Order: sequence, then C-alpha cells, then structure tokens
Amino acid sequence: MTVATPAPTADFTGSPARVLVCRGCGTEYPLAAQHACWECFGPLEIGYDPAALAQVTREQIAAGPPNIWRYAGLLPAGLDPADRVSLDPGFTPLVRADALAAELGLRAPVWVKDDSANPTHSFKDRVVSVALTAAKRLGFTRFACASTGNLANSVAAHAARAGVPSMVFIPADLEAGKVVTTAVYGGDLVAIDGSYDDVNRLCSELVETEEFEDTAFVNVNVRPYYAEGSRTLGFEVAEQLGWRIPEQVVIPMASGELLTKIDKAFSELVEAGLVEPPAGGWRVFGAQSAGCNPIVTALAAGVDEVTPVKPTGIAKSLNIGDPAAGPYALAAVRRTGGWMAEADDDEIREGIRALARTTGIFAETAGGVTVAALRTLVKEGRLDPAAETVVFNTGDGLKTLDAVAGLVGPTYRVKPSLKGLRAAGVMG
Amino acid sequence: MTVATPAPTADFTGSPARVLVCRGCGTEYPLAAQHACWECFGPLEIGYDPAALAQVTREQIAAGPPNIWRYAGLLPAGLDPADRVSLDPGFTPLVRADALAAELGLRAPVWVKDDSANPTHSFKDRVVSVALTAAKRLGFTRFACASTGNLANSVAAHAARAGVPSMVFIPADLEAGKVVTTAVYGGDLVAIDGSYDDVNRLCSELVETEEFEDTAFVNVNVRPYYAEGSRTLGFEVAEQLGWRIPEQVVIPMASGELLTKIDKAFSELVEAGLVEPPAGGWRVFGAQSAGCNPIVTALAAGVDEVTPVKPTGIAKSLNIGDPAAGPYALAAVRRTGGWMAEADDDEIREGIRALARTTGIFAETAGGVTVAALRTLVKEGRLDPAAETVVFNTGDGLKTLDAVAGLVGPTYRVKPSLKGLRAAGVMG
Repeated sequence: MTVATPAPTADFTGSPARVLVCRGCGTEYPLAAQHACWECFGPLEIGYDPAALAQVTREQIAAGPPNIWRYAGLLPAGLDPADRVSLDPGFTPLVRADALAAELGLRAPVWVKDDSANPTHSFKDRVVSVALTAAKRLGFTRFACASTGNLANSVAAHAARAGVPSMVFIPADLEAGKVVTTAVYGGDLVAIDGSYDDVNRLCSELVETEEFEDTAFVNVNVRPYYAEGSRTLGFEVAEQLGWRIPEQVVIPMASGELLTKIDKAFSELVEAGLVEPPAGGWRVFGAQSAGCNPIVTALAAGVDEVTPVKPTGIAKSLNIGDPAAGPYALAAVRRTGGWMAEADDDEIREGIRALARTTGIFAETAGGVTVAALRTLVKEGRLDPAAETVVFNTGDGLKTLDAVAGLVGPTYRVKPSLKGLRAAGVMG
Repeated sequence: MTVATPAPTADFTGSPARVLVCRGCGTEYPLAAQHACWECFGPLEIGYDPAALAQVTREQIAAGPPNIWRYAGLLPAGLDPADRVSLDPGFTPLVRADALAAELGLRAPVWVKDDSANPTHSFKDRVVSVALTAAKRLGFTRFACASTGNLANSVAAHAARAGVPSMVFIPADLEAGKVVTTAVYGGDLVAIDGSYDDVNRLCSELVETEEFEDTAFVNVNVRPYYAEGSRTLGFEVAEQLGWRIPEQVVIPMASGELLTKIDKAFSELVEAGLVEPPAGGWRVFGAQSAGCNPIVTALAAGVDEVTPVKPTGIAKSLNIGDPAAGPYALAAVRRTGGWMAEADDDEIREGIRALARTTGIFAETAGGVTVAALRTLVKEGRLDPAAETVVFNTGDGLKTLDAVAGLVGPTYRVKPSLKGLRAAGVMG
C-alpha cells in the first residue's frame, strides 16, 4: 500500500551538513530521508555550512585513518567512528602512469586513481558507506538498492558486516561475477527481468510502500547522502597530489553523478581554503560507452536535455539509459571547458588491456571505457596532452572477466620438461 | 645449456639483512641470488643484524606509508623508495569478526586479517614486492615464477607496472579467473601440462640455464628475499592490535612458508623490543585442504618428515603436494603448542559462505579452508575459544567464483512490477 508519511528526519548535530537543497529551484528542506523537491520534483543534495567546512585543516585530515573517514569533517555523517556503517573504503592508490601516457601521446604526467582497491573492488563502497551511515542515523533497519552490479556487491557486503538485513535489486542479465559476489553475503537478492532503468523505477515505487518503510534504498530515498560519498575521490586526488587539483580529469559516467561530485569536491576544497586551483582552472571530461551514450550525445548536439536510450554493450556498470545527473554532468563539463567521448566494445577491451599492460591495473569494463575515451580525447585534440591528467578507474577487472577472456590466455602450452620448453620456443 | 656461474651478489648496504643462512646446518653465505646450501642442500633464509632490527621504533613505522614499506627497516630491501619494484601492497584491514566468533562458538575476540585487499587481491603481492625489489638490486632484468595462480597474477602485474618483461609458469588446469588475470598484463604465460609440483621442478631446472641467467624466479633463485615479505603480515597484525601479539593465529598452508614467517615476525618484534609477548606465548595453527594435507598428516602422525601427496580438490592455491617449508611449519606449530586441521571441499565452500555472511569478506577457497579449519579446531578442543584469535584470509573470492557459483544466486526472479514483486513474495 502506498502511504504518505513524512520523511524520517534525524539529528545531524556535529556534521557540517545543514539542509537538503533542491538542485533545480534551490528550495531547502531539513535533513531527512527525502530525495526529491516537493516544489519542482528536482533532485535534492546536501547543503553544508561553509564555516564548518572551512574549519577542516590539512593536518586534521592527515591525522585521520587511511580511508574515506579522514574526510569525515567534510561528509554529512560519520564523524563519530561508532556511528559508521562501513567497510572503511577509500584512500586508494593514485598511480603514476608514464607508460600509458607515452602510448596515448600525452607529454605531461598521467595518473590513474584506482578504485578497484576498495573492499568490494569498486568506488561504490564510498557512497554506500556514507549512505548507510546516514541511513542508520535516520532510523532505517534494512538496506537496499537498485544496482548494475557493483552497488549490489557493496550494499550486500556492508549489510553483512553490520549484521543488518539487505535486499538488493538487479537486472537479471548481470555478469555472473557480480551476481555471485552479491549473493554470497546471504542477503535477499531480487533479479528483475528488465533493464537497470526498470529496476530503478521499481525501487522508486517500493520506497513509497508501507512494506519498505523500514528500508533505506541507498540510491533512492537516501540518495542525497549517498552521492556525497563520491566527493572523497576528489578530496583524495588533491591530497595525494600534495594538495593540488589536476588540470584535467577523465571520469566514467553512468548516472553522471560521479563526475559532478568530483567537480564539486574540487570547488569545495578551494572554498574551504585547503587548495589553490590550477592557474587556468580544472577541466572535467566524461566517458560513456557507445552502447549507452545519452550524455555524450547531448553534449555533441549542444542541448541541455538528455534523451534516454536503451543501453547495449559490455560496459554494464555504466548502462543507465536515463541518467539522473546527466544535465548536471553536461553543465560541469561545459563550465570547466572539458569535453566527452564514447568507446565501443572493441575500444573498451583494448582500453582494459592497455591499462593492464602499462600500469599493472586490471580494470573492469568501465575502466576500459575511460582509458579508451582518454585516447579519443587526445586524438581529437579535445584534451591537452601537455596538461596533467587524472583518469578514474572505478572497478575491478575480476568482475568482468568475460570482456577479455576470449582475447588473452597462455602464450605457450607445453609438456613439463626442458625438452618441451625448447620445442615450444620458450627458451628463446 | 646448464652453466655453473657464481650466484649474482649485490650491495645491500643500509638494509638490516646481513647474510643468507642455511635453515638446515646454519652455514652462512653473502647476500646473493642463491636459495640452497652448498653444504647440505638445505633452504637459505635471510639473517639480519639484530642491532639494526632493534633500532626500528614504533614511531618510525607509524610515520611510514600505509603499506608494507612502513616496515622497510625490517626488510632485506626497499629502504629507499626509488629502489622499490612494487604495487605498494599491505596494511590490509584487520576486521573484528564478532558474528563469526559467535557462530563458531568462540568467546574471545576473533579478527580476520583480510589480504584480499592487496592490489592483485592476494597476500602474494607482499612477497613479490620484496622479491622483485631485491631482484632489481641483484641485477636481474626479467621476472618469473612458478605459480598456483595468485603468484602469477602478482608477478605479471608487478612486471607490467615496472615495465620489465615477465614469464610466468602455471599448471594448465588453473581457474579461468587466475589465467585471464595473469595474461591480461601482457607478459609471457606458460601453461604446463602437469601439477604445480611439476611446474616448480621445471623452474628449478630453468634457473640453472644460460637462457634464464637474466631471470629472477621470485620463488626459486630469489626465494630467501621473497619469503621475507610474508613477515609483514605478522608485523601488521601486531601494530593493528595496538602493538600486541594475539594468543592464537590460524594460517593456511601451501608450502608452509607463510605460517613460519608470521611466527618468525612475532619473534622478531619481541626481540627488537617492539612488543611484549602474550603471557602464555602465542600458539600457531595451520590449515590445509583434505585434498592436499601432507603437513597435517605429518603432525597427526607425530613425524618430522612430510610425505608428498598428489593434490586434489578446489583449494588450488594451496595445492602444493611437496611443501618445501612443511618441516618448519610443523616445528613452529609444535614449539608454540598449536595444532592443524584440514577441510574437505564442502567444508571449504561453507567456510567461504560463513565468512561472507558474518563479516562481508568474500574469500577465495584458501580463506574457506582457514575458516573451516578454525571451526574444526574449536570443535575438537584444540583451539581455546576463550583466547583472542586472528584468522588469515590470503585471497579474494572473485578469483575462485566457481567454488560457490552453484550454491548461491538470486533469492527471487520477477517481472518488473509491484504486482510481480507481490506475487513472488518480495513484499513480505
């Protein structure tokens, strides 16, 4: 039964978060489990007290743990370690990628921010830790999500660690690796015969039902908190570069939210006095797969409206055909003078292999999309090859093995003897 | 052609390592690429200058990076960051596992040291980083190994990051996940029609040939350096417990080396004055699979000799039928008053699931072996349920998905509508 109860609120005293604010019309609401504006139906995000953010110092951050909670003073929840619902993700490696830069024709440093190093091996652990920490404070007693796979892994694992029941909703055609890696944690797993967009719509309906009143859907009713976790990627890159913002960043886009939040993190660091911006500002670049490119298409067409598509192709973790934050991603790219590019399945596979060969980082398909997009952006002259660039790898190659399984394998197969090795040419 | 050249030596000035020393007869050798004693054919290990180890302080360590190199002052190589050949593994989570303790009937704290968090998602990154850093100093220009899978992943990834050619030798019947995750890095991968023990023997022959004079086999000719990397697991556990050694540790055994080195690390910390031992000392427990249990069998039989077996079963990363450090593992377990247990394939699968359900950690089969062994050790009264226990998970469940793929999956499969969810019972 659909009910119209007020959204649960909670005491967020001590957090720098002040209100929920509509990204469309600017209307403010108290901090609650609410994600859409009652005035204009626009998405809500967290509004912070600028004075609270400005109190955070580099020294405080450096004294914190080597995970996202070192930035607790910049997050809506989790300042008290006892409050956290978390696998303690974050502070993942920022890897200098000289050989990749050389291969793609860049002359300035290229870095890979490798979020496959998170506990469930994708950047989703960041957003889930923040969302569930807020959800606990808001009184929810079950955790849920709509997911293309990585989020499912993360929510199920977080719930298992916390000893809280979970129910995760996925499209039935997900990669086997992502299904097993969710189901093994023992929560409920609901496979929906439909696309991610169908799953997402269904969860938006469920959140309004009495039966799910106790349930935090991390990317629906507590989405404003969830999205804030992505900012930690921006904070970390700046800190790991010695408190500098890079001139260029290349970011994969599904809903488009990750891109907008990394950009927002950079702005906040400048406003909080923690870093100086680069002389010419920073430029934000987005990457999608050719099988799901609605934001890239809108940029190329010069329009603000993102027309939904029916996703295809191997980059399933990016297959959101109706990207909620698409217009905001467009705005960030346009404002900063960046651009976007897409990659087809063959380019994605080659992107995965190029990254592995040159850096020792094995990325999932989304990482292949981003590396391929970087290649295209350089080739097309959209990205300055003489400016420092950070590329974001958001997930692990072990989750999408099928993407490259047919392309790579043993170089030799031989009998166990020196004679066998010589005959096969292994001895040179 | 087999040649008899002197083993390459190098200047290890600045390192606390002083000599290579035979674990059999105690003969000492200069630091070189040598792994066996010329007197008794016993294995060599690193001998340190105790005064150098004693100079390392907790404060120095705490000021180091959040990876194994914070213990560089206790390692044979890598004190200068510029010398390191490394993916910077280590400082992985030590996770308090109250729900697991409750399920298995332990009344004192149980912790899981989760080495699936390393860059290539197994503890092998630790040993490979130390081995290749030493190998570079010893002048080698190609990296190689004999591997049951995890080591292959790690050597190939390290070589790719360093821009050094690699050649990795594996049994041809490895899990697909481990083959792809090695091949993707672009080095040479040689699949041998035989067991790991066959592969290992072959590499021991190759290392003596002219064609492989330039090649460091991490677990053959630079094995003494390699093995030392495992000590960082012991250092980390002690530091993460607030500079305490736990009363009991449960460790998976393949060659048996990991167990001996964690035990050695605890002794060294005590000798260096960095920790006090627990009042009753620490007890070391070992775990093998029922399909490859030669060390467990020797302990049960009360003998020092380990009789090789032909391995079977799903725990392939532990399938070393002729374990080189078996006698030393037996000695450590007997000296400390510990014990060993084995787990069959069904118990391994249930061990994986129990760990995932209770901690949110998805382990590979070796982790399942260890959790299952803990259960057995408690049940048989070998392990004290009232003493603090640390369990080591050495690899990631994503690498051995097949082990549980048939056992877990979606709880529901439904059409994308509220009506469909209600009909399926999802709404409760």
